[in-house]
Amino acid sequence: MTYCTGIRLDAGLVFLSDSRTNAGVDQVGTFRKMTVYEHPGERVMVLMTSGNLSISQAVREQVSAYVAADGTTIWNAPSMLAATRIIGEAVRFIHQRDAQALAEFRIDFNISIIFGGQIRGERCRLFNIYSAGNFIESHDQTTYFQIGEAKYGKPILDRVINPQTGLDEAAKCALVSMDSTLRSNISVGLPLDLLVYQADSLAVTRFTTIDERNQYFQMLRSSWGQQLKAVFESIDDPVWDAAPGTTDNVLCAASGKVPPLRVPLPAYLSESNAPAAPLQSLAQDMGGQQS
Amino acid sequence: MTYCTGIRLDAGLVFLSDSRTNAGVDQVGTFRKMTVYEHPGERVMVLMTSGNLSISQAVREQVSAYVAADGTTIWNAPSMLAATRIIGEAVRFIHQRDAQALAEFRIDFNISIIFGGQIRGERCRLFNIYSAGNFIESHDQTTYFQIGEAKYGKPILDRVINPQTGLDEAAKCALVSMDSTLRSNISVGLPLDLLVYQADSLAVTRFTTIDERNQYFQMLRSSWGQQLKAVFESIDDPVWDAAPGTTDNVLCAASGKVPPLRVPLPAYLSESNAPAAPLQSLAQDMGGQQS
Repeated sequence: MTYCTGIRLDAGLVFLSDSRTNAGVDQVGTFRKMTVYEHPGERVMVLMTSGNLSISQAVREQVSAYVAADGTTIWNAPSMLAATRIIGEAVRFIHQRDAQALAEFRIDFNISIIFGGQIRGERCRLFNIYSAGNFIESHDQTTYFQIGEAKYGKPILDRVINPQTGLDEAAKCALVSMDSTLRSNISVGLPLDLLVYQADSLAVTRFTTIDERNQYFQMLRSSWGQQLKAVFESIDDPVWDAAPGTTDNVLCAASGKVPPLRVPLPAYLSESNAPAAPLQSLAQDMGGQQS
Repeated sequence: MTYCTGIRLDAGLVFLSDSRTNAGVDQVGTFRKMTVYEHPGERVMVLMTSGNLSISQAVREQVSAYVAADGTTIWNAPSMLAATRIIGEAVRFIHQRDAQALAEFRIDFNISIIFGGQIRGERCRLFNIYSAGNFIESHDQTTYFQIGEAKYGKPILDRVINPQTGLDEAAKCALVSMDSTLRSNISVGLPLDLLVYQADSLAVTRFTTIDERNQYFQMLRSSWGQQLKAVFESIDDPVWDAAPGTTDNVLCAASGKVPPLRVPLPAYLSESNAPAAPLQSLAQDMGGQQS
């Protein structure tokens, strides 16, 4: 699997991708999932892919090779929207060419893409393209996209990111989000590609590849883990069955309790002097009720 | 969907379930997913279900009705293992009865169960039962199970829970895990059922239903959110392009940079005085490359 996130802020864009690929647990590899298209002073575009690796690579090749009848390419598309449509068309072209052959081996046509950047004369824009070649654009209410193993790292993004977040803080948040994912899902792995794009720079000025020796990421991981535990411990444990008003941490007031959903005890067991039920081995009898 | 977690500790067991059900976004309901079997002094067992609600309810009915040929029931099964086998058999019985009819409406036979508790003479045990009626038991290396929308709330469990964790602390951790899930996934919802079982008590002493007015859960949610943000802000932002040794937070040393994966700029664009490429509308030409 994969985990990538792209964040659009007033100050620019942040892209972060992992590099783990796997086809079953015995075929694990490292492939970079972030591709940069840079024409300094003119445009910077970043493509990140998740899904079947052969499809991802085919789409990237197709995007690079695409020339429309009027001569439009990824390099001269007049807007990020037009460039994103080229990505969508590339996905559809590869689907048309490969999906049937893949289906014969029960392989889904499965790709998800984050694509963002800036073309001179436009603001920064960020898109999420699906397997059908359709896509959505981020807006201020939803200022980031995730692809791949997105769920582990979503809560911290939801808590921190908004359009006014600074670029360095957003990069830090993306790295925390990635750390949570790395810890909980073995199909996501180092090294990471991190690209931070400053609005209107129209050039790649901040890019780094982060491996397990990266000093900042090491610091972030250990600080975050330690402080998260410290915060967790600093929050009071719940108080059970407190009388109202006696504490600020009442989980369950002594009055007004709701009982659990119970299966009633059979009548023969609820009588105090009921005979003991037979306690025999189930091994030979488990099929009884099914016949 | 659903989110439930069950945790087995040296001190006992913690069970937490949400109550949101949905069949499409326009059919959202509240159903409790935790069922308690209690015979005080003899056994306490807790069942939580995720998956198709009609299957979950049918399985629960089947478990309650089950009587093996030798008279064994959920109420007299001699061990938690034997009781769990009754759950597995109930799943298989419902599968045999309903799966074909569901398949005709393209509905998967989809259920996942957490079942745990204690029977007098045994230690506390915790199981995870799958749609095929097979199951696994928790051990010290994997001391919790989750069903439903498990990923959002997994990182905090991974960071905090081990067999020595106290019951109240584990309950607090389960609630934080639930909070992350509630914030990031609309298919999980209040109220929650929380049951904390003290080993060897053989009775339900700590159970509560938590809704949005619960004072402890309100405190937990706001404290956790605020302090998480405070911790996040307390960690230094990355420093780009620092000379080695100048700071402790070097994300990208000035030496030894790895470049991003780039698509090379076409030759006609890399010449400084190249003619401008045509910047026409793509609208009518997107199909070109596909023909």
